[in-house]
Amino acid sequence: MSQIRDLTARKLFLSFYDGKLENNQKVTLEGWVKSHRNNGSVGFIEFNDGSYFKNIQLVYDKENPNFDVFSKVKYGSSIQVKGKLVLTPEMKQPFEIHVDEISLLGDCAEDYPLQKKKHSFEFLRDIAYLRPRANTFNAIYRVRNTLAYAIHKYFQERGFMYVQTPIITANDAEGAGQVFHVVNDFKHPEAFFNAPACLTVSGQLHVESFAMAFRDVYTFGPTFRAENSNTNRHASEFWMIEPEIAFADLDDDMDLIESFLKYIIKYVLDNCKDEMQFFNNFIDKGVIDKLNSVIASKFVRMEYTEAIELLKKAVENGHKFDNNNIFWGMDLNSEHERYITEEIVKGPVFLINYPKEIKAFYMKLNPDNKTVAACDLLVPKEGEIVGGSQREEDYAKLQAKMKELGNEKGLEWYLNLRKYGGCIHSGFGLGFDRLLMYITGMQNIRDVQPFPRTPGSLKY
Amino acid sequence: MSQIRDLTARKLFLSFYDGKLENNQKVTLEGWVKSHRNNGSVGFIEFNDGSYFKNIQLVYDKENPNFDVFSKVKYGSSIQVKGKLVLTPEMKQPFEIHVDEISLLGDCAEDYPLQKKKHSFEFLRDIAYLRPRANTFNAIYRVRNTLAYAIHKYFQERGFMYVQTPIITANDAEGAGQVFHVVNDFKHPEAFFNAPACLTVSGQLHVESFAMAFRDVYTFGPTFRAENSNTNRHASEFWMIEPEIAFADLDDDMDLIESFLKYIIKYVLDNCKDEMQFFNNFIDKGVIDKLNSVIASKFVRMEYTEAIELLKKAVENGHKFDNNNIFWGMDLNSEHERYITEEIVKGPVFLINYPKEIKAFYMKLNPDNKTVAACDLLVPKEGEIVGGSQREEDYAKLQAKMKELGNEKGLEWYLNLRKYGGCIHSGFGLGFDRLLMYITGMQNIRDVQPFPRTPGSLKY
Repeated sequence: MSQIRDLTARKLFLSFYDGKLENNQKVTLEGWVKSHRNNGSVGFIEFNDGSYFKNIQLVYDKENPNFDVFSKVKYGSSIQVKGKLVLTPEMKQPFEIHVDEISLLGDCAEDYPLQKKKHSFEFLRDIAYLRPRANTFNAIYRVRNTLAYAIHKYFQERGFMYVQTPIITANDAEGAGQVFHVVNDFKHPEAFFNAPACLTVSGQLHVESFAMAFRDVYTFGPTFRAENSNTNRHASEFWMIEPEIAFADLDDDMDLIESFLKYIIKYVLDNCKDEMQFFNNFIDKGVIDKLNSVIASKFVRMEYTEAIELLKKAVENGHKFDNNNIFWGMDLNSEHERYITEEIVKGPVFLINYPKEIKAFYMKLNPDNKTVAACDLLVPKEGEIVGGSQREEDYAKLQAKMKELGNEKGLEWYLNLRKYGGCIHSGFGLGFDRLLMYITGMQNIRDVQPFPRTPGSLKY
Repeated sequence: MSQIRDLTARKLFLSFYDGKLENNQKVTLEGWVKSHRNNGSVGFIEFNDGSYFKNIQLVYDKENPNFDVFSKVKYGSSIQVKGKLVLTPEMKQPFEIHVDEISLLGDCAEDYPLQKKKHSFEFLRDIAYLRPRANTFNAIYRVRNTLAYAIHKYFQERGFMYVQTPIITANDAEGAGQVFHVVNDFKHPEAFFNAPACLTVSGQLHVESFAMAFRDVYTFGPTFRAENSNTNRHASEFWMIEPEIAFADLDDDMDLIESFLKYIIKYVLDNCKDEMQFFNNFIDKGVIDKLNSVIASKFVRMEYTEAIELLKKAVENGHKFDNNNIFWGMDLNSEHERYITEEIVKGPVFLINYPKEIKAFYMKLNPDNKTVAACDLLVPKEGEIVGGSQREEDYAKLQAKMKELGNEKGLEWYLNLRKYGGCIHSGFGLGFDRLLMYITGMQNIRDVQPFPRTPGSLKY
């Protein structure tokens, strides 16, 4: 097989875009039948070998002695095709293959659940093991792959160290949501590790210890929430990106977030042109403009306190929110966030310096003693997309806060990072799956993950 | 801060290696004190800002009015230094910094557990949150980062799709070892997902469904084993790389393994020169030669059956294994594997076509009905390092095997992949942490992971 599998649709398309695709060359490809029609004298097969988003058209005609055999090739089956590649500058697809031979590699049974017709996303979720073959999911998972690589590329080119923080952990980090417990023996749940074990909700605390050695670091891995939330945006398992930078304050953190987001969005637009055009045409008209506008924007920075004043003014002027009770100290709802980014700023905006009561214990207390050096990035059509903060580097202040919350036990080491050559440092967290929703315009987190896990749902 | 944090040791070293480092330039850096000595007239600080493996020497002398203040800067503390960079072609380090100012950013308490003296690896394991600052771990985690990136680069440059297979799963994949259970409510362990949930032992079965859509795919993520194994090579949580390729037989699989391993090892040797020199000098003399020899080798392919004959002959000729009972059908011990790769082949060797009884259910049955199309890659000084196989693509054969083992329930979808346009396909699994041990020469898996999880141990 080895020589044959050297050729892929990807190679053909890339060499076409490079202007180097040789006309009339003989090709051999293996792949799947995406559609098949035959008018009695000519047959057309839409063929995809999985290496590229676009299909290749295979054409065979009556003159081929095997016309009747070819005409029986079924939708969904895997085939090997040998033929001549012909450039078709006058047509929609850049080239097609004039078939000499088709060999059936794997047939497709009649009860194939993924039919040629348009299925609902709900139905496709139920056949998650087959949906990567559907057009929309072909596009989603390609963008997912490219986005993941863009994330690593951005950090690696800038000297950040990738740290695989632990999945099984003894502490539940920021106390965010409920945790899953990990047990080997139900009768003795703490026997295996000699401690209660749970699934991580964040790698931040662990990765801070690496920032204190390597300066600029990041995690990119799975995190978990045992919340019983049945929304389009909540999953029990999802991937997070959590960078942490030493010798860096909140301004540095926001500089990083802005540069990072622009880079990875641009990378996807540049490297998934066909897929993004697909989303723009069929999923979310205007999504490409939305992303280009983010790249072109200078992200504004606005005090939380100012945002509250602006929201109060909006209510006074007759704007109706579902929640019109605006006051300093409140946690903003999505409608408030969207009003600020869409109506007031008309672009991406960092809200900064939030009331300490509504933010996590590790965030740096500002000199006003009322707010912490936190930032939430709000973007149009979404609301909050990234949350970051400068971390409290003052041992006494952090200790007091942890005593107040009673979460020092098991986190003495985290506190000690402030005692042994600590320094100002900052970081942020970004949900990978939600970012992918934002970039593709997909509306349900279950439809951007390979095999989603949500309350009541653990198929596959 | 933003302008200041632009300059890092990494930038200085990289521009030195590019021959572009400007002599006598004014620099400002933030980082940590790795050692400090002072003879009363001159002071020397070994300084590291975490961005590069090598330290930078800071020099200050009596003429500086703050000499006495500088001399009090403690080992382990974080500082900002301003000074003049001076090239030192006659010395071991390529340049040093003549200090104008040092500002203390974060002091280091007297009870700092990481002292300047040499600590045992056992002791350092106990202060896992501080050990990234120790020389050896500085080197390990840098190689770990570079190796992880090399893995993504290799696959991405070849059009493979990265798939994040699920961590929480309903089936225990290959039945390999004991699994951890995931629960939210101990009284109703199946309530949350409405199914028994466990932590994945392998992403292979899930990723096969993506190979049937995207041809060439890979996972790279955490996997888990609840085995009570207290060895240097077993961890309860570790990262695996699992590529899966469609339209590919066992030969293609071995071609991929060989090309992949050579690429990532060479990438580490090229991009972690200082770190690898450190391992060669202090951890495992000859490790660089060992790796270069792997890159230079053509990997041999040998039938399991032939290996058994050769081992029998070795015993007949008086070679003493701990286990001298060699017979066809046995699972080889590490001593047998090492004898084959070290004494017989004297280089990397794939053993292929193992007895079906000792291999996993999804491996392709050979026409002899006795063996399966599996391969284990054995390398000198290690034994087995990669396990791969062609997968059974025949629906009836796979179904029969699964019936025999009684593991069809919940895996109907996996079987169905053979029914809907299936094709020959292959893949392999490689433990990331063990590969890192092999590359660095480190002897304990606990010392190559950021925060190791092993039976009885869940600190941090």
